[in-house]
Amino acid sequence: MRNRQWVLAAHARGEVGPDCWTLVDSDIPTPGEGQILLRTQWLSVDPFMRGRLNQGAGLALGDVMIGGGVGQVVESRHPGWKAGDLVESPEIGWQEFAVITPDLPGASRANRINPADDEPQAALSWLGMPGLTAYFATMEIARPQPGDTVVVSAAGGAVGQLAGQIAKLAGARVVGIAGSEEKLEWCRRLGFDATIDYKKSPDLAEDVARLCPEGVNAFLDGTGGPIQDAVIKNLAPGARVAVVGRVAVANDVLDADVGPRLSAALIRTRALVQGFVVYDWWHRRDEALRRMKAWRTAGRLEFREDVVQGFESVPTAFVRMMRGENRGKQLIAL
Amino acid sequence: MRNRQWVLAAHARGEVGPDCWTLVDSDIPTPGEGQILLRTQWLSVDPFMRGRLNQGAGLALGDVMIGGGVGQVVESRHPGWKAGDLVESPEIGWQEFAVITPDLPGASRANRINPADDEPQAALSWLGMPGLTAYFATMEIARPQPGDTVVVSAAGGAVGQLAGQIAKLAGARVVGIAGSEEKLEWCRRLGFDATIDYKKSPDLAEDVARLCPEGVNAFLDGTGGPIQDAVIKNLAPGARVAVVGRVAVANDVLDADVGPRLSAALIRTRALVQGFVVYDWWHRRDEALRRMKAWRTAGRLEFREDVVQGFESVPTAFVRMMRGENRGKQLIAL
Repeated sequence: MRNRQWVLAAHARGEVGPDCWTLVDSDIPTPGEGQILLRTQWLSVDPFMRGRLNQGAGLALGDVMIGGGVGQVVESRHPGWKAGDLVESPEIGWQEFAVITPDLPGASRANRINPADDEPQAALSWLGMPGLTAYFATMEIARPQPGDTVVVSAAGGAVGQLAGQIAKLAGARVVGIAGSEEKLEWCRRLGFDATIDYKKSPDLAEDVARLCPEGVNAFLDGTGGPIQDAVIKNLAPGARVAVVGRVAVANDVLDADVGPRLSAALIRTRALVQGFVVYDWWHRRDEALRRMKAWRTAGRLEFREDVVQGFESVPTAFVRMMRGENRGKQLIAL
Repeated sequence: MRNRQWVLAAHARGEVGPDCWTLVDSDIPTPGEGQILLRTQWLSVDPFMRGRLNQGAGLALGDVMIGGGVGQVVESRHPGWKAGDLVESPEIGWQEFAVITPDLPGASRANRINPADDEPQAALSWLGMPGLTAYFATMEIARPQPGDTVVVSAAGGAVGQLAGQIAKLAGARVVGIAGSEEKLEWCRRLGFDATIDYKKSPDLAEDVARLCPEGVNAFLDGTGGPIQDAVIKNLAPGARVAVVGRVAVANDVLDADVGPRLSAALIRTRALVQGFVVYDWWHRRDEALRRMKAWRTAGRLEFREDVVQGFESVPTAFVRMMRGENRGKQLIAL
């Protein structure tokens, strides 16, 4: 048997097409001492990966594309792991077999999956990176309180759907922004109080103002760009903005990401804007997962996945997700 | 005797000239029950006042120009005040006599001046609004720590010179940015470790990078605009940015204040950017003044004023300050 890998064929400029990658054949790698060999079962595609496709962002032509996934241990030379174990790792990359070094320094080389929790791919969604992002960005930066109005952008995405539900649990009113009626319908089924289709809004800032008449107390910002501008215009005094992603402008060269400066709005409202990366909070992963599982068991945390079949489909699934065409967390089942 | 007042003659667009105001004569007002009549001794001109000159910012043509000052009580109909008392008030406005209602709700209608502390006009500088701004923005938002590099913009101004010294007291390395060699020379005399003349810098972001090789841990942002852009580009992980003013862009219409969006820099560094207005901290004024006085007594807090003589000179002093031509806190002695 051979390994198959999607390797970088071209650095990206602007919108990404599936021709950024080429499918290549290679030997199945051999684990060294302290390593494990996985067979990939699930891959995750996430907006942050777009940045890594730029020239100078660390990936060379011919490198295996980075990305997280779920695999089953085929061979272990690490005392903590044995064949058959299920593992989630952000280090798998777009390949059918991967060697992981669990003890390398870093937040999360290899995370054990407990099959009792949920299906294995949940470790890539609500029990994994997107879930922990939603949990900590909401609880630690946005800090919703009863009576608050919380805006969530990319509301139909992996992080947004969870962040909105967590804000609801905290007693806040939640307004979701997304790019299709289908996504917004899902948000409303999750309990979001109001929704805005930014693609159909003639004046997004006005729509936010209308739906948030007392201002936006907290904002989970997954998109950046003009959606961010429209929400920032409507911040309430003391607002908290968690900058979690910038998928709306991820295709642009960095110099092109230009918009209204924030000073006037921030001075007027004394609002706080903070960048967020989930790995800073990894030491509190157990606490977060315990709470998320309890909410899910109680039926208070819904989640939907958009599953594409087959290793061949990984690039097209990525492109689809970047275009916002996914319906829930974008996953690939191998 | 008559009162003289500078009243708004025209709303401002772009750079402000002295023709925004007209000098008018009026009766000396009579204090009602619970009010005091002051004779103005000192007036302060501050960058925040520029925003109030815009159409729709609350001042109508013919209104007395707003502004803080120091006066002496001429007549009191308030049990807490008597003739001869010295009072600092942000409510005096540009006039020779003013009636103040000390007990109106609000942070600071009338603040008693203790002549033992310093000369009376210190209540408009290091013992007043600029001093408290420097103290709380530095201590509560920028939060300098030993080993940090702190950048202060508008470093020669009323707030900047104090903020830099407070950051030095906290053990940080301080880099000041201002618009003339004369101001920077003063900053260096105050102990700033390095200085940048933004008017002479061919590439400000590069100059900040060169002088802050490990990045900027905290930033007291008094200017906004392109100086803010250059510093944000160089934030260190976990940086704190206190947005205190936007004098660099205050003359522009709001829509024209456009620059690089912050998301990429904030996600990369997890930095926090927060708007600041000193009146939010007024309940802790005594604590701050106690510490500032102790530092000043110990010779660890220097301050310089730029005093212009005569009520006639108020508009030109304001214009001068907005152009950055003042050397230290701009005051007018009546």
